[in-house]
Amino acid sequence: MDRLSLNQITTKAWSLPEAVAGCAEAGVRWIGLWRDKVAETGVEEAARLLKEYDVGVSSLCRGGFFTGVTPEGSPVDGVAQTRQAIDEAAALGADVLVLVVGGVNGSLKSSRQRVADAVGELAPYAGERGVRLGLEPLHPMQCAERSVLSTVDEALTIALEHPADQVGVIVDEFHVWWDPRIEESIAAATGRIAGFHVCDQKVPLTDTLLGRALPGDGPIDHRHLKACVEAAGYTGPIEVEVFDADLWRRPGGEVLAETIQAYRDHVS
Amino acid sequence: MDRLSLNQITTKAWSLPEAVAGCAEAGVRWIGLWRDKVAETGVEEAARLLKEYDVGVSSLCRGGFFTGVTPEGSPVDGVAQTRQAIDEAAALGADVLVLVVGGVNGSLKSSRQRVADAVGELAPYAGERGVRLGLEPLHPMQCAERSVLSTVDEALTIALEHPADQVGVIVDEFHVWWDPRIEESIAAATGRIAGFHVCDQKVPLTDTLLGRALPGDGPIDHRHLKACVEAAGYTGPIEVEVFDADLWRRPGGEVLAETIQAYRDHVS
Repeated sequence: MDRLSLNQITTKAWSLPEAVAGCAEAGVRWIGLWRDKVAETGVEEAARLLKEYDVGVSSLCRGGFFTGVTPEGSPVDGVAQTRQAIDEAAALGADVLVLVVGGVNGSLKSSRQRVADAVGELAPYAGERGVRLGLEPLHPMQCAERSVLSTVDEALTIALEHPADQVGVIVDEFHVWWDPRIEESIAAATGRIAGFHVCDQKVPLTDTLLGRALPGDGPIDHRHLKACVEAAGYTGPIEVEVFDADLWRRPGGEVLAETIQAYRDHVS
Repeated sequence: MDRLSLNQITTKAWSLPEAVAGCAEAGVRWIGLWRDKVAETGVEEAARLLKEYDVGVSSLCRGGFFTGVTPEGSPVDGVAQTRQAIDEAAALGADVLVLVVGGVNGSLKSSRQRVADAVGELAPYAGERGVRLGLEPLHPMQCAERSVLSTVDEALTIALEHPADQVGVIVDEFHVWWDPRIEESIAAATGRIAGFHVCDQKVPLTDTLLGRALPGDGPIDHRHLKACVEAAGYTGPIEVEVFDADLWRRPGGEVLAETIQAYRDHVS
């Protein structure tokens, strides 16, 4: 239980104050924050609540969109927005800022180059503020719209160009469980893993964004992947991060209780 | 135009006789057949029509499901069914039988081993009948239900255990375009490519099965991938294979005309 972190998207019905208090009450020591929820409460008040309830921030989600376009197709200055997100992460005491790097804009190759360039521009800025950038490869079904980084290997290649305390990779099971190279990719990322996110995949998979479930209801071998990231030196918080419309409709307290049970039964 | 092949799923409204006649009329020399359409017409009659209209079979779709379960979750003897499919391919004069290997049943690792074992069992049988097995990696979003082979690399690893005339790999753009290793994977598959299927991906991608479009309407660089497979020695038919509910509702002749135009504009 010491390592369990509630990624607050899982309990979407809860505000940030409710989620922080809910974690404290349930004995969950970590929380993964989202910027829209932080904005509702305000950064200072959020930081105060985290301190009051003694809940640590495993990560802040998210910066990125370096290819210059949102998933909806609008232009965006991802570098500028990510600078703000780095400042916010520092103010919240979050060690890690999760990056969703952005989808295809122009060619796939040039999109990937823009991502590498943006990380190069931002890494020192993050390092100065004590925030580690967490490059999160997303599932290939989200390549066109959200992330031209699809594998741990590919994220690691970019991370390795920078100091380990400035850039790491996030291993999110939903995005990478299918990868035939996942074991060797995680091993290659020793010392570079900045986060481990768990959930399951719904079967059949009918939704490209909301096809997640609590651990235990799908094809992912959580203990195997947990052993892989631990062998690669990662002993930090483990976020349970579930995008699921049914869970989102339910009270946060109920969802957190089930999250804790699923974590005990299938992950820890 | 010499290399264009109509995968008949693209013109789903057409029966096999309509599709074969339609190809001949439009000057399309190749067709990719599906077993359900062949069954409606009968193998002998289908073979007769192909000869009469002088249309070659670029591939027969499909054998596989070696992990013992259908996408709907029913038990299936994939090896026995694939033997029948190999016989059918031989009777139709199809050089290649496309394999969709099956989804996760038990662990991912054991599922992949079952696939490798099944290919080992079937390769000599196929070789004796002049049919090449085409291992088709499917998009990772179809890993749980349809194919534990997700990358060209992984399919190639299995193919290389057998003679090149018995087992090859199918490169279908929709499934592999996002792969950061696709160029080197295709290069490694020199002499092993048994088919090249083109289409585009819809953006946003909202359906895991029907998210395809005619070439030109998505993020895939067809001429780049075509150059890659050609550099790897593949000079055979190029199938346009589109699963799209809107296309399927329209008359086959219209769809084929658009297919030819899209192929000319974006592929050839």
